[in-house]
Amino acid sequence: MNPEAILSQVYDPQTGHLSGGMTVRRHLSDLRNSFSNPAAVDEHLKQEDPLLYEVVAVEPGDADGDLHYGLGILYPGQIDGEYYLTKGHYHETREAAEVYIGLRGEGMMLLEDEQSGESRLEPLGAGKVVYVPGHTAHRTMNTGSEPLTYFGIYPADAGHDYGALAERNFHKVLIEENGNPVLRDRRIEEQP
Amino acid sequence: MNPEAILSQVYDPQTGHLSGGMTVRRHLSDLRNSFSNPAAVDEHLKQEDPLLYEVVAVEPGDADGDLHYGLGILYPGQIDGEYYLTKGHYHETREAAEVYIGLRGEGMMLLEDEQSGESRLEPLGAGKVVYVPGHTAHRTMNTGSEPLTYFGIYPADAGHDYGALAERNFHKVLIEENGNPVLRDRRIEEQP
Repeated sequence: MNPEAILSQVYDPQTGHLSGGMTVRRHLSDLRNSFSNPAAVDEHLKQEDPLLYEVVAVEPGDADGDLHYGLGILYPGQIDGEYYLTKGHYHETREAAEVYIGLRGEGMMLLEDEQSGESRLEPLGAGKVVYVPGHTAHRTMNTGSEPLTYFGIYPADAGHDYGALAERNFHKVLIEENGNPVLRDRRIEEQP
Repeated sequence: MNPEAILSQVYDPQTGHLSGGMTVRRHLSDLRNSFSNPAAVDEHLKQEDPLLYEVVAVEPGDADGDLHYGLGILYPGQIDGEYYLTKGHYHETREAAEVYIGLRGEGMMLLEDEQSGESRLEPLGAGKVVYVPGHTAHRTMNTGSEPLTYFGIYPADAGHDYGALAERNFHKVLIEENGNPVLRDRRIEEQP
């Protein structure tokens, strides 16, 4: 135990504030190719480039057995019926799992197995926990009308691999139909 | 991703309920030798043997990179001025860290470095996160008047070692003095 190490942080489940971390902010323009309909994104960007989500990450150590954690806030909204979403990633260290603890709001996690390509949808929101096994791409979507906030905790050596998904995105998309979230196959003709 | 695996759970930050896990319950009689004043414990046990805490643990996998997590609820109370506390433990895999996320209530974590023997007190309660580095014994204490609930997330191979502390307890004790928690050296003459 390094006497200099800062071991305590404070957080706010409502605002997604977490002390002592590094913040990443993603706007709609950063997510253009994550949505099914990039043309609809471009149309929206003519008016505004809203903040879609922020993640504050705390990395207390990098030795074997250490953990990192982050607090995310994903705002509500849609592009052409598709819910606001995070880029999604694999872990660089593929076997690294992650625990997501929902604090506020209503959403879903889309999980996609690297080997089989199979998709699963798991509820993430206030009072929900989702376990993301290793070798699994994962993305968060806000299906509600208020911000979705959640902790993610993962091994320090997990790393984030966005590249694999930047090339070929997730196989499925989560669309609102008649007021409900429905998982659909991604339509290839909508790719840019 | 095993298609049969259950990846979602529900929890209640107020009651400490967490679905799908194994529950451990510790009563005052289980903690007799964790308190500074076992004679005061024995006196209390003549009247009742209250539940001090419960921990529900979920273990979704045991491979490299997997994580386990638990939700604890520690009730408020004191024995001879010492706050209700958990047994406390090292991890069997000494380098394994743990992230504690406070959900409700007011408390403290006592950390003790295995090598140096040095102690640290960190606040754990609603809106607080505590990082427990590897090689560190850790115990939770409820310093408030309502239940203290918190998540703990740790590597799947961490394991729990209670034996080392059963023999020689923590060096420090957290006592209420004039309404405030004060960390004191354990007085040897109070050992059984």
